[in-house]
Amino acid sequence: MNLNWLRHFPDLPATLPPETRPSDLARLELSLAFPGRDFSITLSPSLGDSFILDTIGATTILTGGETGLLYGAYALIRSHLSGSPLPAHLESAPQYPLRVINCWDNMDGSVERGYAGRSLFFEGGQFAYDPGRMRHLARLMASVGLNVLCVNNVNVHEPAQGLVAELLPELSALADLFRPFGVRLMVSVDFSMPLRDGLDTADPLSEAVQAWWQRTCARVYAEIPDLAGFLVKADSEGRPGPFAYGRSHADGANLLARALKPYDGALIWRCFVYNCRQDWRDPSTDRPKAAYETYQPLDGAFDDNVILQVKNGPYDFQVREPLSPLLLSLRHTHLALELQLAQEYTGQQIDLYAMAPMWREIFQDLPADRLQAIAAVSNLGRDENYFGHPLAAVNLYAFGLLAWSPRIDPAEVFDNWACLTYDFSAADRRTLVQLLLCSRSVYEKYTAPLGLCWMVNPGLHYGPNPSGYEYDLWGTYHRANRDAVGIDRTAEGTGYLLQYPAELQARYADPDTCPDTLKLFFHRLPYDYRMPDGRTLIQRIYDDHFAGAEEAAAMATVLKALPFPEPDAAVIADRAGRQVQNAENWRDVINTFFHRLSGIPDAQGRRIYD
Amino acid sequence: MNLNWLRHFPDLPATLPPETRPSDLARLELSLAFPGRDFSITLSPSLGDSFILDTIGATTILTGGETGLLYGAYALIRSHLSGSPLPAHLESAPQYPLRVINCWDNMDGSVERGYAGRSLFFEGGQFAYDPGRMRHLARLMASVGLNVLCVNNVNVHEPAQGLVAELLPELSALADLFRPFGVRLMVSVDFSMPLRDGLDTADPLSEAVQAWWQRTCARVYAEIPDLAGFLVKADSEGRPGPFAYGRSHADGANLLARALKPYDGALIWRCFVYNCRQDWRDPSTDRPKAAYETYQPLDGAFDDNVILQVKNGPYDFQVREPLSPLLLSLRHTHLALELQLAQEYTGQQIDLYAMAPMWREIFQDLPADRLQAIAAVSNLGRDENYFGHPLAAVNLYAFGLLAWSPRIDPAEVFDNWACLTYDFSAADRRTLVQLLLCSRSVYEKYTAPLGLCWMVNPGLHYGPNPSGYEYDLWGTYHRANRDAVGIDRTAEGTGYLLQYPAELQARYADPDTCPDTLKLFFHRLPYDYRMPDGRTLIQRIYDDHFAGAEEAAAMATVLKALPFPEPDAAVIADRAGRQVQNAENWRDVINTFFHRLSGIPDAQGRRIYD
Repeated sequence: MNLNWLRHFPDLPATLPPETRPSDLARLELSLAFPGRDFSITLSPSLGDSFILDTIGATTILTGGETGLLYGAYALIRSHLSGSPLPAHLESAPQYPLRVINCWDNMDGSVERGYAGRSLFFEGGQFAYDPGRMRHLARLMASVGLNVLCVNNVNVHEPAQGLVAELLPELSALADLFRPFGVRLMVSVDFSMPLRDGLDTADPLSEAVQAWWQRTCARVYAEIPDLAGFLVKADSEGRPGPFAYGRSHADGANLLARALKPYDGALIWRCFVYNCRQDWRDPSTDRPKAAYETYQPLDGAFDDNVILQVKNGPYDFQVREPLSPLLLSLRHTHLALELQLAQEYTGQQIDLYAMAPMWREIFQDLPADRLQAIAAVSNLGRDENYFGHPLAAVNLYAFGLLAWSPRIDPAEVFDNWACLTYDFSAADRRTLVQLLLCSRSVYEKYTAPLGLCWMVNPGLHYGPNPSGYEYDLWGTYHRANRDAVGIDRTAEGTGYLLQYPAELQARYADPDTCPDTLKLFFHRLPYDYRMPDGRTLIQRIYDDHFAGAEEAAAMATVLKALPFPEPDAAVIADRAGRQVQNAENWRDVINTFFHRLSGIPDAQGRRIYD
Repeated sequence: MNLNWLRHFPDLPATLPPETRPSDLARLELSLAFPGRDFSITLSPSLGDSFILDTIGATTILTGGETGLLYGAYALIRSHLSGSPLPAHLESAPQYPLRVINCWDNMDGSVERGYAGRSLFFEGGQFAYDPGRMRHLARLMASVGLNVLCVNNVNVHEPAQGLVAELLPELSALADLFRPFGVRLMVSVDFSMPLRDGLDTADPLSEAVQAWWQRTCARVYAEIPDLAGFLVKADSEGRPGPFAYGRSHADGANLLARALKPYDGALIWRCFVYNCRQDWRDPSTDRPKAAYETYQPLDGAFDDNVILQVKNGPYDFQVREPLSPLLLSLRHTHLALELQLAQEYTGQQIDLYAMAPMWREIFQDLPADRLQAIAAVSNLGRDENYFGHPLAAVNLYAFGLLAWSPRIDPAEVFDNWACLTYDFSAADRRTLVQLLLCSRSVYEKYTAPLGLCWMVNPGLHYGPNPSGYEYDLWGTYHRANRDAVGIDRTAEGTGYLLQYPAELQARYADPDTCPDTLKLFFHRLPYDYRMPDGRTLIQRIYDDHFAGAEEAAAMATVLKALPFPEPDAAVIADRAGRQVQNAENWRDVINTFFHRLSGIPDAQGRRIYD
C-alpha cells in the first residue's frame, strides 16, 4: 500500500531488475503513471540532477541527467496526480547538490527524538528492516528530490561504529535498495573510532590516525562506491573530538575529508558546539554565541570537501529563533543548513506544526548561494504511517520541495501535498492548507510567543515547564523575576547581536522596533513595557497564550470535521484532542507562572490560576 | 572481611552446620567473642525474641527464646566490643515483634531508589548473590535485632511475580542462609497475580481468586514454612488493586490475609495511596489528606493478621513532615510504621544524614503501643561497603536499635556504633557523633527549611529545583508567588490539620506558635511575616540556606580531618566534597528563586545571584 503522498502513485513491481539505474526507474515510473502516453526521453549525464521538460502536442520531451530524469519523472507524476496541467516548458535544477535526511536512529532500535515509533532500519543491535518499506522510503525521498540518507544517529553508539567496519556488507545491501532511487547513503562516524581499533590516539595530526582513516575509507568505498560521505558530531554534548588533542575543528574535519577525497566523499561536520556545563550564575556566557566563536576564526581553513552543518538558529530548534549568524558570516567555507523535521520542540508529532513557513523566513535572510547542502533531521519511524501524525508527512514533502527550490510558496507546496494525499473537495483542501499554514503560529502562541524559549519539560521537551532549564547547566535561561523577563543580547548585554551583519543588527537592536516574535530573545523587558500595539508585555504574554489555546481548540474542531480516510482520521482526531489539552496546559502554566511573578491581573479578567 | 560495625566481630567459620538454629549460633558467637569465658545459657522458647542477662562473678547467665538467645549474645558482643561493662542485670524485649527491612530490589539487578550499587540479590532477571555476603547481611541485621527481610521491590516487576511460583526453590535456598540468624524472608506480591496465572479476574470476592491465593500460600509455605508473609502496594502509583473491582482495601487485604492465616503469615498492606494524577490548578485536593481519607473509614474492618504499613509522614519521606495522622487515628487496626533508610530525598548517601534524631521526634508523637511492626526501606546495595557512604551504615544500625527500643537516645546509639566501627580516640569519636547528630539539621537548612518540601529535581530527587513539581500531577505544590509561599492546611485552608487529635491541632493551628520547622507545611505566609525570632520569613529563608551551606562546608572540613581508615577515608572525603557543592547549589538556587519572586534583598548583603 502506498501511504501518504504516494497514495495514488502506481504500484511498482515487487522487485526491480538488478542494477536498475535512476534513469531506468524514471522510464518505468512514467510508463506506469502515464500508460499509452508518448515520451521522448534523453539521458544527458552532464545535467546531473537537473532536467528539462517540454510538452509538444501529445509528446512529452524529458531531458536530464541520470537522476535528473527521475526527478523530472516525479515532477510530471506529482503534477499529473494533483490535477495540474503538464508544463509546456520547464527547466529545473536543484538549489543544493546535497539534499539530506539525517536519521537519529540507534542500532538498538530506538530513535533519538523520534516520534513515529522505533527505527525503520535497526533493532536489537542489528540491521532489521522490511525491504518493501525501504523501497517505499526511497521513493518518498526521490519523489520530492531528496538524494542522501544518513542512516544512523550523530551520537554514534555501539555497535554503530561497525558501520564502517564489520557491518559494511549489510550497509552495502541497504545502499543497493536505495540506489535505483538516486538516494545515496551517508553514515555518522565517531571521531574516536581509531581508538576502538586499537590505536592509542585519535589525534588528527598523527600519521597513524591519518593512515587509519585512509584505510577505513578504502574499505568503505570498496563496498559502497557511491557513499555520500561521513557526518560527524564532535566535541559536542560529550562526544569525542579534536579538542581532546589540542587541535582545531579544521584539523579534525580535514583529517576525515582528506581520507574521503579520493572517493569524492563529503565530510559533513556539525557546528553544534557549545558549553553544556554552564553555570546559570554566570551571566557572561551566552550559549547562542558559541558556534560563531568556535568556527568564525576557522573560516577558510577547511578543505573543499568539508561542509559545516549549522542549525538554523543559534540554540537548538526552538519554535522561534533568529537565523544563526554563522550562516551569514562564513564566507570561505562550505555550509549546510540543518533543519529538524522531527518535532522535538514543536509538538512531537502530536501537535500540528507545518514547518515550511518557518523555513521560508530562514531563506529570506539567507542568500541562496550561501549553502552547498541542506539537511533535515528525520521525522520518520516504524509507525504504520511513518510519521506518527499523518499530517506530519507534509514536513518531509515540503522539505524536499524547498531543498530543491527555496523560494517556492509554502501554500503551493501544502496544496500540492494535500491534492496528492487526500481526495478532498477544493473547499476541504483549502481548509486543510489554511490549517497547515497557521499551525506554526498557533503552536508558537501557546508555547513560546515573543521569542521566549526553553520553557519546556527538560529532557522530554514536550509540555510547559517555565523554570525547567532555569537553574541547569545547558545555558538556556530566561531569568524572569518579579519585574522583567528575557536576556539582553545587544551590545549592552551579552553582545550576541554583534555577530550579525549590520542590517540584521539594525533590525533587532532596538526593542521598540525589534519584531515582536523575537523581542524577548534579544531584549530584557519589564512586564509593563509598552508593545507597539499598545498592550503591555505581560498582557501580550497572557493574550497570546489565551489566543493560542483557543485557536488550537478551533483547529481541532475543524480538523475533526474534515473527511480524512481511516486510519488517518482516527489518529488525527486523537492527536488533535491531545493538542488541545497540551495548549490548555501551556496557557495555564505559563500564565500562572508570570502572574505569580508579576502580580498583574489579566486586563480581560480571564481565569489565571493562583 | 567484616565491614562496618561488624569490623571487630570474630570471623564465623566458612560454613555453618546444616539446621543451625539461632540458639546454636548464639552459643557459637559467644564462644568466639569471649573465648574462655563462662556462660550459662538457657533456652526458654516462650521468651521468643526476649532475653535476660545476669552477670554473677565470672559467669554470665543468659536466658532467652530461640532468637532471644541470639539477640542477647549480640547485645553482649556489642557491649564488649564498644568497651562498655557487661550489664549486671538486663531484661530486654523488643518493642515490636516484626522489625523489617524492605528492599526495593528488582530482579533485573536495579534497585529503586538505591544509592549503594546494584541489587545484592538479583541480576539479569535471576537470583545472583554471594552467599558470603548474604550471611554477612544476615549477621548485620541480627546483630541489631532486625528479623524480617523483604527481598523484592514493592513495585513488583516481572519476573519477580515468580517468587511465589516457579522461583520458590531459589527463594527457599536464600531463606536457608538467613534462618540461622533469626531473619525470616518476606516477599512483595502483586494484587493482580491471579491474572498472570490465567484467571480472568483478581476480584477479592471471587471464589476462584480466593482459592488461587490459598493454593499459592500452600505452595509457598510448603517450601518456606517460616516465611514472614507478603507485602503489598495496591492501587498506588499505577499498581493494581481492589479498586479495579469496586472493592475496598479491607476486601483486598483480607483476601490475602485469610490465605496466609493458616501459616501464621502476616499481610502487610501499604497505605501509600493518593491521587497521583492531580491537577495543580485544583487547590481543593490536598495530597497529605489522602491516606487518612482512604483508610480511616475502614478502621476495624481488617483481619487480625493484616498490618497496615504507613509512612512516617503524609507525603513521601521528605526531610521534614509532621507525623501521619493515620498512625494516630486508626484504633482498631494493626499498624506498621514505614521509615526510609535509603536517602531518596535526604542526600542519596552522598550527603551525610543520620536519621535517628528524626525518628526520635516521630516516636515522641507516636505512643509506643500504637504499632505492631516497624519497617524501613533498605539503604543497602552491592557496593563494597554496602551503603555507598560508609557513614550511612549508622542508619541501619540505629534503625535496629530503635526498632527494639524506640526511646533510646540517638547520641548513645551513634556513640555505640562509632565505637564498633572505628578505632577512634574518645575525642574523635565525640566529634563524629556530633557531626552525625547535627547532620540532619544541616541538610534541612540548605534544602528544605521551615517545612518547605518538594523543591527537588523531579524523578532524581537530588538537588534543587524550586518549581520542578509545581505544575505537575503529583499533588506536591508550594504555590510561591511574589507575595507569599506555602499551603494553608488549617480548617480555613485544605482542612488537613483536622485529621489530627486536638493536641496536635493546637500545636500547628496558629502560625505564630506552629514550630518553625513546619510553619510553611501548615501555613501560607507572606515574605514579610515576622517569625518568632524577629526576622522576616524571607530573611529566614535566606539565612537558613546560607547557614546550611556554611555548615556543610564546616562539616566537610571536620570529616576530612578525622582518621578514617581506607577505603572509607577516600569515599567519605569525596562525598563530603560533593555535599558541599550540593549545599552551595541549593543555597544559590533557592535564594535566587525567592529573590526573583520577592524582590527583597538579603539584610546582610550576601551574594544572591540575579
